Amino acid sequence: MPIARPIQPEDASPEVRAVFDDIMATRKTDWINDFWKVLAHHPPTLKRTWESLKQVMAPGGALDPLTKEMIYIAVSVTNGCEYCIASHTASARAKGMTEPMLGELMGVIGMANETNALVKAYQVEVDERFR
Amino acid sequence: MPIARPIQPEDASPEVRAVFDDIMATRKTDWINDFWKVLAHHPPTLKRTWESLKQVMAPGGALDPLTKEMIYIAVSVTNGCEYCIASHTASARAKGMTEPMLGELMGVIGMANETNALVKAYQVEVDERFR
Amino acid sequence: MPIARPIQPEDASPEVRAVFDDIMATRKTDWINDFWKVLAHHPPTLKRTWESLKQVMAPGGALDPLTKEMIYIAVSVTNGCEYCIASHTASARAKGMTEPMLGELMGVIGMANETNALVKAYQVEVDERFR
Amino acid sequence: MPIARPIQPEDASPEVRAVFDDIMATRKTDWINDFWKVLAHHPPTLKRTWESLKQVMAPGGALDPLTKEMIYIAVSVTNGCEYCIASHTASARAKGMTEPMLGELMGVIGMANETNALVKAYQVEVDERFR
Amino acid sequence: MPIARPIQPEDASPEVRAVFDDIMATRKTDWINDFWKVLAHHPPTLKRTWESLKQVMAPGGALDPLTKEMIYIAVSVTNGCEYCIASHTASARAKGMTEPMLGELMGVIGMANETNALVKAYQVEVDERFR
Amino acid sequence: MPIARPIQPEDASPEVRAVFDDIMATRKTDWINDFWKVLAHHPPTLKRTWESLKQVMAPGGALDPLTKEMIYIAVSVTNGCEYCIASHTASARAKGMTEPMLGELMGVIGMANETNALVKAYQVEVDERFR
Repeated sequence: MPIARPIQPEDASPEVRAVFDDIMATRKTDWINDFWKVLAHHPPTLKRTWESLKQVMAPGGALDPLTKEMIYIAVSVTNGCEYCIASHTASARAKGMTEPMLGELMGVIGMANETNALVKAYQVEVDERFR
Repeated sequence: MPIARPIQPEDASPEVRAVFDDIMATRKTDWINDFWKVLAHHPPTLKRTWESLKQVMAPGGALDPLTKEMIYIAVSVTNGCEYCIASHTASARAKGMTEPMLGELMGVIGMANETNALVKAYQVEVDERFR
Repeated sequence: MPIARPIQPEDASPEVRAVFDDIMATRKTDWINDFWKVLAHHPPTLKRTWESLKQVMAPGGALDPLTKEMIYIAVSVTNGCEYCIASHTASARAKGMTEPMLGELMGVIGMANETNALVKAYQVEVDERFR
Repeated sequence: MPIARPIQPEDASPEVRAVFDDIMATRKTDWINDFWKVLAHHPPTLKRTWESLKQVMAPGGALDPLTKEMIYIAVSVTNGCEYCIASHTASARAKGMTEPMLGELMGVIGMANETNALVKAYQVEVDERFR
Repeated sequence: MPIARPIQPEDASPEVRAVFDDIMATRKTDWINDFWKVLAHHPPTLKRTWESLKQVMAPGGALDPLTKEMIYIAVSVTNGCEYCIASHTASARAKGMTEPMLGELMGVIGMANETNALVKAYQVEVDERFR
Repeated sequence: MPIARPIQPEDASPEVRAVFDDIMATRKTDWINDFWKVLAHHPPTLKRTWESLKQVMAPGGALDPLTKEMIYIAVSVTNGCEYCIASHTASARAKGMTEPMLGELMGVIGMANETNALVKAYQVEVDERFR
């Protein structure tokens, strides 16, 4: 159960409602996931976070949207954030991630965590060529 | 200074030397970075780690090699592994990552860490639709 | 389900019971939360942890008790410890944390995780002026 | 050495320069720390991050600025971000953090990491009263 | 609910079935835990991970199997991986870990997380004697 | 450079000096490593931390001292605490850890980080048999 109650659109202040409307318009859906409903508890954080996320994940940049969703998954796994893994896996699938892509993504994430641990364990110094 | 001394190719046992040779052949280079020289301290870990990494990062899978390098960077940043960020950024640049791609990658990684923290903070439960 | 069963006060050894009594006396309550009942599985860890926590969170120091609870929340969010977030949020509310304070706290925690990630990503070196 | 070179004010584009000017004006200083100079590598991330940070750390909210700096330190320690600890400790001292306050803050952060680990180790479930 | 469905032995491809058989033969059991059934979603990751784990945890090395299980628990607690703590605690108990050993293990893990945090907080530099 | 200056024994208050003396007596050495000199900045944290560590690492418990040092290393690697890895590796070597033991320890730590990531990635639920 979240630390703060989710705020439903019908109970939202105009400030919160405006963000909810922008989320639904941007995503072409009539549904708001609970993350935003919980953030609505603190409207400035809701607004700032949504606007940042919208900018960062916008199409038309140097990386395609599916690659960005997979990077989001990689960070979320490493942080152990279940909600984040679940929601961004859903988004990545909606953007075309196939099951073999998911499997290979998980393999890279697992391996990266192993070699990261080995580097930290042995305290390897950065090679001159990598600087 | 690493916890265990790096082992130079000329001092390596045949078992270690064989792995070093495979690294250089696979990467089409005559240089071995220090990570492998330090792992050579424990030959079974060197061999197993290299063979796993070679399989995971091999071309021809469901994800292209540059995407996999960027996922590696995302994990390494989240784990705070400096060597790993430096070495995989070098690899990603060698595989075609441009500066705008790096900038956008960093933006996604930063934002993912913020929203991950917010989700964990509020303990948002996974929406039914994401299951 | 915890890895080790919680020990109820009526089943506790005198050594454990003495710690439980001190917890209830210090907190002016007749209730023990499960964290302590599970630690009771290993009495030296129960006693040492309670005495350390009591000292660290005691009023009368350089930081006020509510500030210390919010710092506890910040660490717990960053570690992804649900129980810890839930219990220290309850304590902070009991000590006067309002909903706007909670919202602003969460905003700072989220932002700190984003900028931490960006610093680690770019490997920014500490400026001379900060040393 | 950072992954991307810091951009000095005299080499900055007008877009970056405007952010630098706002940082200096907001902080009443003529100095920019390297974090911002490195972020300047990707102007949209620079602008978005500065505007978010400025909003989150602004005075006049529900938490006083020094408390917010100490929360930033708690997150940064838990994430192991050296630059972040160094810069926010400098800011906290500038805002009035005394040495006993720093010592007590560190004690709380250390203890929180210990009890977080114990909770995770024993997988204690959230008590009904904390929900 | 896992992100990918567990694959039951009766539905497994011959490649997956061969790994399942090796797991059961190595562990002298007729049961496969869900970790492997979920990894079966991506056969190369299943095979590579099982072969690596079998090698790393094999008896006859420089560390006895129970010590290795306890090290696995220490890593899993620090990463906050519930499944991993639960499964390796079960394995460690099967290999002879007593309740006082578990209690003492948890005490060390908790204390290590506290002193790790204090070291990171104060940014203590490595003493010459430790290099 | 640490956030707070190390306090040398000759500059220490009687309270700090008493802890330093106990460290040297317990360890049968005339040398204090910098961790304690920095903690001396806040005498209550110095005293509490030393007494906790002395209790946790004391011989005569259910785990032998070398096993406890290796568990400390496993936690420190996972947390990315360089000082902690360096100091506890030195202690473990002093207590009899050989190079093959170190190599095998690192292998287990690396593998545990990989499988932890895979479990978190796929969100595998704890099997009934492990509860």
